[in-house]
Amino acid sequence: MTQHPFDQAIELSCLAREGDTTRWAGATTESYWNMIGPFGGTTASLIMQSLLSSPQRSGDPISLTLTYASAVRQGEFEIVTHLVSATRSTQHWSVQLAQGPDRTVAVNAIAMFATRRDTWAASEARMPDVPPAEACEVFQQPPGVVPWLHNYTFRVLQGNILQARSGQASEDSTSTLWVSDKPPRPLDFASLTSYCDAFFPRIYLRRGQIVPAGTVSLNIYFHATSDRLAQLGSAPLLCTARGLNYGGGFFDQNAQIWSPDGFLLANTQQMVWYKE
Amino acid sequence: MTQHPFDQAIELSCLAREGDTTRWAGATTESYWNMIGPFGGTTASLIMQSLLSSPQRSGDPISLTLTYASAVRQGEFEIVTHLVSATRSTQHWSVQLAQGPDRTVAVNAIAMFATRRDTWAASEARMPDVPPAEACEVFQQPPGVVPWLHNYTFRVLQGNILQARSGQASEDSTSTLWVSDKPPRPLDFASLTSYCDAFFPRIYLRRGQIVPAGTVSLNIYFHATSDRLAQLGSAPLLCTARGLNYGGGFFDQNAQIWSPDGFLLANTQQMVWYKE
Repeated sequence: MTQHPFDQAIELSCLAREGDTTRWAGATTESYWNMIGPFGGTTASLIMQSLLSSPQRSGDPISLTLTYASAVRQGEFEIVTHLVSATRSTQHWSVQLAQGPDRTVAVNAIAMFATRRDTWAASEARMPDVPPAEACEVFQQPPGVVPWLHNYTFRVLQGNILQARSGQASEDSTSTLWVSDKPPRPLDFASLTSYCDAFFPRIYLRRGQIVPAGTVSLNIYFHATSDRLAQLGSAPLLCTARGLNYGGGFFDQNAQIWSPDGFLLANTQQMVWYKE
Repeated sequence: MTQHPFDQAIELSCLAREGDTTRWAGATTESYWNMIGPFGGTTASLIMQSLLSSPQRSGDPISLTLTYASAVRQGEFEIVTHLVSATRSTQHWSVQLAQGPDRTVAVNAIAMFATRRDTWAASEARMPDVPPAEACEVFQQPPGVVPWLHNYTFRVLQGNILQARSGQASEDSTSTLWVSDKPPRPLDFASLTSYCDAFFPRIYLRRGQIVPAGTVSLNIYFHATSDRLAQLGSAPLLCTARGLNYGGGFFDQNAQIWSPDGFLLANTQQMVWYKE
């Protein structure tokens, strides 16, 4: 069986382990290339994968936060994971992705893992009222899009890229879409992490045009458990995002990732640099 | 002039500097004590203050993210700031707060600072439609509340602590309130950081009762600039928070901090551990 391009993109090999610190080696792949570096979601998935691969890791991810310090360049990189603190049920991690002879840090990250317990549970947020993925048309990507987009099937219900290129400014930056891996791939925390960054910059919709922009910080809070993700298989996920404030070269975005049956798998926030 | 209790709580002295790494010393104060440790907002402010105090720091904070690894114990602590990466206009930091002879990490944090530029700007989110602070009654705190609450004036418009203790479960965890330092203190990034954590756990409102709970991760995206904060003086800020999903021992909270004239100063998200 051929390896899924996503599994190829997040493949890491362990270089060395010393106490609570592990060094991992990986390399960028063409299939998840964005404009001047790999798709930021793939980079975030690599950070997640380095933690999931750690023999010291216990429990499921609760939070993952990255700041992108510089563009990841084509080729090899190293990820260093460090277990900062642990109790019987929680773990706190620091992770950095670095490249080149001077070990330039491209990503600075922290994460928390925990063993979940059965507790009172409730969903307060509601999934947007949309037709099921099967009833929605697959979005035909316009020619010339960046490579990573070809690895996903998008069914866009609101706020597509054509609108963002229309020259027509909008007061509402919301995008709502079904997203799935192409070819289908069973969901896990690594792929869910990428889904959290699968939105083009909200400012495109606000301005009705493409302006230089890139995520500088990504924060993810996970509600999904390994079991729930396993049960979902390769089901499309409903992803919805909206910007809140734009100014001084930065805007924020709040986004939610839902299972088809309306469970909030992840609540995520990002800060995006833009120009003009 | 007597030092404001907040300035006392975030006071740090530089112990040593070596290259891009600086060690700071501080101590907990009684006035911002919570139940079993200092108010988490004060701890977050200390992390912010260590960065603001750094001679290497340039620009304004864009993002600050903390995970709370263990309760800060009464007494002295050390903060280590490390400048991970810098360009002409951006800086990426790692920060840890540790305590005790074994240097137990209580807080693991990352932050990004940047020099902002004039760009196209817009506010997409709208401040809740509420009366001005002056027209709102000051919330009379019930007897026996934790010490840190006495350092703030709350004018609660929705979701107060009495409701959260009523035994009456609620479908909506929203709290909306005007918050100001008591006695008044000119706003800065350190105090704004605390405001981002000035909400009791959303689950209290959902359950209508107090259950064991504590923030494990706090993420803040700043839209305020130093200039804007200076112009606001010690004006009350409108703070609004809501939970999205509760399960497996953790819930999330999205919150926004607004200036009286409707500018979104900070968009913040946190993950909270709870029991039962």
